Amino acid sequence: MNFAFVAKQIALLIIVLSGFMLLVAGWAGAITLAGAAVERDAAGALLVVALSGLLMGGAIWLAARRSTGYLDRRQALLLVVLSWLAAAVLGGAPYCLWTHLASLADHPYRSPIACVFEAMSGLTTTGATVLTDIEAVPDSLLLWRACTHWFGGLGIIVLFVAVLPSLGVGGRRLFGVESPGPQPGGVHPQIRDTARVLWYIYTGLTAIQIVALKLAGMSFFDATCHAFATLATGGFSTKSASVGAYNAVVQIIIIVFMVLAGGNFGLYHSLLRGRWRPVWRDPELRVYLVIIGISVAAIAFWINGTTVTTTMGRTMTATPGVALREAAFNVTSIQTTTGFCVSDFDLWPSATKFLLVVLMFVGGCAGSTAGGVKVVRLWITFKVLANEIERIFRPNIVRPVRLGGRAIDNTLRTGAVAYCFGTVLLFVLGAFVVMALEGPDAGIDTAASATVACLCNVGPGLGAVGAIRNYGWMNESTLGFLTIMMLMGRLEVLPVLVLLVPSYWRGE
Amino acid sequence: MNFAFVAKQIALLIIVLSGFMLLVAGWAGAITLAGAAVERDAAGALLVVALSGLLMGGAIWLAARRSTGYLDRRQALLLVVLSWLAAAVLGGAPYCLWTHLASLADHPYRSPIACVFEAMSGLTTTGATVLTDIEAVPDSLLLWRACTHWFGGLGIIVLFVAVLPSLGVGGRRLFGVESPGPQPGGVHPQIRDTARVLWYIYTGLTAIQIVALKLAGMSFFDATCHAFATLATGGFSTKSASVGAYNAVVQIIIIVFMVLAGGNFGLYHSLLRGRWRPVWRDPELRVYLVIIGISVAAIAFWINGTTVTTTMGRTMTATPGVALREAAFNVTSIQTTTGFCVSDFDLWPSATKFLLVVLMFVGGCAGSTAGGVKVVRLWITFKVLANEIERIFRPNIVRPVRLGGRAIDNTLRTGAVAYCFGTVLLFVLGAFVVMALEGPDAGIDTAASATVACLCNVGPGLGAVGAIRNYGWMNESTLGFLTIMMLMGRLEVLPVLVLLVPSYWRGE
Repeated sequence: MNFAFVAKQIALLIIVLSGFMLLVAGWAGAITLAGAAVERDAAGALLVVALSGLLMGGAIWLAARRSTGYLDRRQALLLVVLSWLAAAVLGGAPYCLWTHLASLADHPYRSPIACVFEAMSGLTTTGATVLTDIEAVPDSLLLWRACTHWFGGLGIIVLFVAVLPSLGVGGRRLFGVESPGPQPGGVHPQIRDTARVLWYIYTGLTAIQIVALKLAGMSFFDATCHAFATLATGGFSTKSASVGAYNAVVQIIIIVFMVLAGGNFGLYHSLLRGRWRPVWRDPELRVYLVIIGISVAAIAFWINGTTVTTTMGRTMTATPGVALREAAFNVTSIQTTTGFCVSDFDLWPSATKFLLVVLMFVGGCAGSTAGGVKVVRLWITFKVLANEIERIFRPNIVRPVRLGGRAIDNTLRTGAVAYCFGTVLLFVLGAFVVMALEGPDAGIDTAASATVACLCNVGPGLGAVGAIRNYGWMNESTLGFLTIMMLMGRLEVLPVLVLLVPSYWRGE
Repeated sequence: MNFAFVAKQIALLIIVLSGFMLLVAGWAGAITLAGAAVERDAAGALLVVALSGLLMGGAIWLAARRSTGYLDRRQALLLVVLSWLAAAVLGGAPYCLWTHLASLADHPYRSPIACVFEAMSGLTTTGATVLTDIEAVPDSLLLWRACTHWFGGLGIIVLFVAVLPSLGVGGRRLFGVESPGPQPGGVHPQIRDTARVLWYIYTGLTAIQIVALKLAGMSFFDATCHAFATLATGGFSTKSASVGAYNAVVQIIIIVFMVLAGGNFGLYHSLLRGRWRPVWRDPELRVYLVIIGISVAAIAFWINGTTVTTTMGRTMTATPGVALREAAFNVTSIQTTTGFCVSDFDLWPSATKFLLVVLMFVGGCAGSTAGGVKVVRLWITFKVLANEIERIFRPNIVRPVRLGGRAIDNTLRTGAVAYCFGTVLLFVLGAFVVMALEGPDAGIDTAASATVACLCNVGPGLGAVGAIRNYGWMNESTLGFLTIMMLMGRLEVLPVLVLLVPSYWRGE
């Protein structure tokens, strides 16, 4: 294993991330000078961490600069995992430092582990927070928090659409983007082009959403933070009441962009090149939209006429219109694993809550910023199960599993089913650990929903981590464990698990 | 589809079952004459139903007696499903008739659907009951209830060790018994022999357990009913407090026989023929015992020193000895899907309750009377998952999945993983339906645990269907739905689902 080469890449990431943090620190300094005295400590914290990051990243880069090599499969896997870990530590440091500079002894950010949890939650686009009173946190830190979402989302798209497929990991045929085979010599120029176009799309959609939200009445700051959180399917808000603090038009705009963010960005690439057919014919997109549609209809039907409590604490009777909007917001927010909230769905009927938890597992499309097992894997699994049923009474028929007209090879089939069941296993194990670590504080519903909400990068769960609650009450060991769960979910489990296999370290 | 031939087989089943019911009715009549006046109505109910069954079975047999044919795959699947359904209707009828003869307007058995639920629970060896006050039910009906367990267990062993494998269904290589290939001409003599030996083993173990329980202080009646329920991994007791009503020696005897009942009966066949090696080397048996051992140790550690409430309502401090016995009883009862209770585990810490629910999914060994996905399928799935992890950094290595030194072919591998995930899906769907049918009466914990307890043929769940609760409060639609879930779980899902496929009915 060429550790120096991996270290050099991570040093670059730290330098880039610290550079962006320096920009946020600069903005914080500017608004402090313009009179926002509350931003002073936050500006200082961001500045100190950004400069330390630049120094440290620079030092590592200098030490490792002579290392040459190429990113083979094993080094790429290590690099991916270490990148997210290093970024989470760097990204969480300003939160903790701020509580010290501002002398806030009881703030949830006082715990370094809680800060790493928050930063990992941002970078994995989960959106689980330890904060109770979000408005009490300086704007500059909230902006940095939203930035972690946006960078994380960008990283995911590049990783799953450009890097991992080129290594043959993750089944590139799942992503609808033509990418070439493994290229040991580094990232192929065509992948570079694809990645660049995807950045443009991601950035462009973000810009459009900022404008839309501004026009709908949000402040420019709030619009920026919420657009960052939407496109990344993150879920960090600048309000304790989340999106429930805003008007219906804002909510509808966010619904539209959440649906877009949960779709395959490779398809938007096709659209940009004027190719409608692959989009129209994409089986995953169809199933994704059908699942959303059916779930919205079911939940709207269920909560129609009941009393709904918004995240602002107001109660209202769900007229058909309100029920439909509530259902549409919560279903898209949960299934795209964004995790914005407009109402306390923890008060809803059991069946609707249960449906939302199931949607967490499903997640968005492959090649999106969403988490979960992804619609395409579930779809393949369903087809495999249907084949198994037929095999019972027609044992001699061999029927290939098809996806959009193309037969799926056996490796991919087993991989999809194994991934779905593996996620369930990981969830079961995780929920058990959370219950063991929290003891009587976490009932089965809280522990289980917290685990799936982190593993599938959603954010809010049920019970004590429900829509209007947060993760701040958990002890540090649980937060640390859930940090790992978020990372595993984000990197689709296998790259993290692989590091636990001894033979991985011994070489091929 | 040769319906007449299928009807003829079912007629035979009805005649045999009615014959046995007639014996129980005779016993009930005898003890009524001997002075047990409370048995009179029950004896009458059993007699009427048994005679009706004989008449109806005879009539069907006469009508269909000229039909000839053989049991091909599709007819066998239909026969298996219809057999359990017909037996449940016949087996439940005496319960309902008894409440009418005894003029008990408010008894849970007044509902015909609750009676079919109870009988299906017996025949699928689930052990879920609608009864609150079991002691108020006449002994003869309790004996019939225990008999449904015993016949159901017998049916399962014959089905999975002799009938289904000969049709190529269920992967006969999973069962450790050499059985020949499909024999269109009927059941092969060697299968007949195997089935007969397995009956002897089943009956022999039952007899030994009856004697052991009698020696430990149980009445002969209670010993018989509990032995019937143990060997079948059923769980119906003659006491409302279940096995918690008896002494520690009784409990330990039942633990031993539950472990035996959850093991592969094919291995006991090997033992009888003096072949220790296949037993000693059986990977499933090892994993099964290891899972039990680890779970017992974990739960004993957890509940050590806490206060335990027995099913009799007594509280006691769990000394290490008590904790170990409690853990051993509950773990084996749940994992072997028996469902006897000695204490109210619903009061235990969340993590231990969650572990018990997970053990419900695991179940016992293939070729036993236990439910769940079976240890061997889970073990194969784990090996497939381990291969998937390795494939990430060694994409070119093809490593066969081995079980006890033999490579498992690809069909069996995909089948095992698909079965595990399919069971999870069915559980999710089932829990959703139960919540939808019950509305606010069933929280997520109650609905979800009731579903897994029925689907995996366990019996008790958590919350409102917990260790000291029952299913009597549920509405009839839910009971009807759970009846189907028990049947699906018992027949390993696919034979039931297959009947919903249109092309199954259209022929090959």
